[in-house]
Amino acid sequence: MRAAIFQGPRRIEVGDRPDPTIAAPTDAVVHVALACVCGSDLWYYRGESPHDVGPIGHEFIGVVSEVGAAVAGLAKGDFVVAPFTYNDGTCAHCLAGWPSNCANGGSFGNHGIDGGQGEAVRVPFADATLVKIPGSGHDDPTLRSLLALSDVMCTGHHAAVSGGVKSGDTVAVVGDGAVGLCAMIAAKRLGAGRIIALSRNPARQALAREFGATDILAERGDAATAAVMAMTDGIGVDAALECVGTNQSMATAFAIARPGSMVGAVGVPHDTEVPINTVIFRNVGLRGGVAPVRRYIPELLDDVLAGRINPGRVFDFETNLDGIADAYAAMDERRAVKALIRVGRAG
Amino acid sequence: MRAAIFQGPRRIEVGDRPDPTIAAPTDAVVHVALACVCGSDLWYYRGESPHDVGPIGHEFIGVVSEVGAAVAGLAKGDFVVAPFTYNDGTCAHCLAGWPSNCANGGSFGNHGIDGGQGEAVRVPFADATLVKIPGSGHDDPTLRSLLALSDVMCTGHHAAVSGGVKSGDTVAVVGDGAVGLCAMIAAKRLGAGRIIALSRNPARQALAREFGATDILAERGDAATAAVMAMTDGIGVDAALECVGTNQSMATAFAIARPGSMVGAVGVPHDTEVPINTVIFRNVGLRGGVAPVRRYIPELLDDVLAGRINPGRVFDFETNLDGIADAYAAMDERRAVKALIRVGRAG
Repeated sequence: MRAAIFQGPRRIEVGDRPDPTIAAPTDAVVHVALACVCGSDLWYYRGESPHDVGPIGHEFIGVVSEVGAAVAGLAKGDFVVAPFTYNDGTCAHCLAGWPSNCANGGSFGNHGIDGGQGEAVRVPFADATLVKIPGSGHDDPTLRSLLALSDVMCTGHHAAVSGGVKSGDTVAVVGDGAVGLCAMIAAKRLGAGRIIALSRNPARQALAREFGATDILAERGDAATAAVMAMTDGIGVDAALECVGTNQSMATAFAIARPGSMVGAVGVPHDTEVPINTVIFRNVGLRGGVAPVRRYIPELLDDVLAGRINPGRVFDFETNLDGIADAYAAMDERRAVKALIRVGRAG
Repeated sequence: MRAAIFQGPRRIEVGDRPDPTIAAPTDAVVHVALACVCGSDLWYYRGESPHDVGPIGHEFIGVVSEVGAAVAGLAKGDFVVAPFTYNDGTCAHCLAGWPSNCANGGSFGNHGIDGGQGEAVRVPFADATLVKIPGSGHDDPTLRSLLALSDVMCTGHHAAVSGGVKSGDTVAVVGDGAVGLCAMIAAKRLGAGRIIALSRNPARQALAREFGATDILAERGDAATAAVMAMTDGIGVDAALECVGTNQSMATAFAIARPGSMVGAVGVPHDTEVPINTVIFRNVGLRGGVAPVRRYIPELLDDVLAGRINPGRVFDFETNLDGIADAYAAMDERRAVKALIRVGRAG
């Protein structure tokens, strides 16, 4: 099969990989319909994080082509969304609701496991990992939103859940990337009364407004903190959602969070310091991480299929597998918020 | 009046201070019955944190001797417990339940505000700050436990609440100081099924057992982590309570906390790093800080008066105001877990 292969920083090529086959009775093989590029993929693309030479991509939806003998809940032809990590569904962490921390799990497109940016993927623990999409003949906007459930929408949701967003809250979202934008959808969905988006890009500002942002701030750093404090009578926000992962974004999130609140953080950290004095002396907590996507998909899937949320709107660039290198470049150069890859037939 | 005065590192002296008087109509003057030395007092005692030359001590119980014209809920002769911070009760942070972050508050024994380690204290916002102790003629063990409510017991409770301790949980307490010991009381009170105390001091181990610890580990660092993981089938604990504030204790707390859990942290940080990669990649959160003591006192007061909890057992050294320097030295040298100072008459 054909698949995107990471050859080194800024070298994404399409190459041949062995066709995936059932290796364990709990496996399924999924033929990818739509895939996409994650903001976190840019870290190894830019050479800022290590990555094995090999398959890449951890977000995809597709059609089951084969199942192992022990797979009970899926059959050939099923249309599915894959969370960006696979999980056994039976370990203590899975049972406690933390499938992305599965003791026997891993993420797609890492350590030789097939990536979503290819024609097909062997999915371990298929029953526990994949979520069947009801219905058929979904229109393209719906398909895009279903694809967003594989990571970005659930990650934005995790920021909001981790930040403890509740009805009527004033919420600030630090970061206007695809995850930050999805965090705005999530905050609105959880009932936030006011959503302050920190964004300086006009196209992203427009999407933020569409997703529920009530206020847009172009400031950064201390100026952003001062602006948020002025907007909240010096109190700070009820929840600050950190969707970048840099030291500055973390510092800003902590500076604008009111005492007793939580920073919900989902950005991949790079030399990021947690301001421990703010934690202790201002009682601002920190929670978040790799989203338990498999746990979140069912409830968000209902909202996507009912048209109540449209996270697929974050895809503002599309190509096919042959254009994968440009998809990375477009996101790296901020020509695109998030790039969609059309690979195969949808269910 | 006579009061302990900080003159510089390792120089605690008893000196004269002006008798406190009503300066604002919301003030009360309290004559101190019992005071004590906090583990956090040792930071400036040792020269590791700055402190103004002047009055010290932030934990006391005593008798109201005078109230301002606007004080409605207290009268001369009332026996009261003071939280270690005063608070106005009306700002946004107080109303949200975070009195220790009051916009107009402060802590006793800091910045020229009377300290608890003296004969009397002017208490700002007396109605909102002080809690009246019902009954009279309390015995000495009860008085000691009432004193513990001014900080140490509520701070241990804050660690447990921040760590999200719930019925049946396996909880680890990092730190066997007075706060850590009180965190064990709090964890048991909140229903923890198993309490692992990290302690290597025989006297503290015995107190830990008395307070509800089911397991004692003398190991530190990586060895402690390995031991806790072995005891929990490799899963980690449901809540890790960080009651020290050092880098090693924070690292241990994060290493032993299971994915999805929270580190409840109340140690005063000193060059303490939060392991952000554990936060993000293992979904371990962090919450805690200066305890909202005023909010916690009422519920814990009931338990103290009913004899259900006995946090006063942490006081294993006592003296009077003249012996204050030795009280600090005893704690500094770890001859004492926590030192009680008998100052005046109880209510």
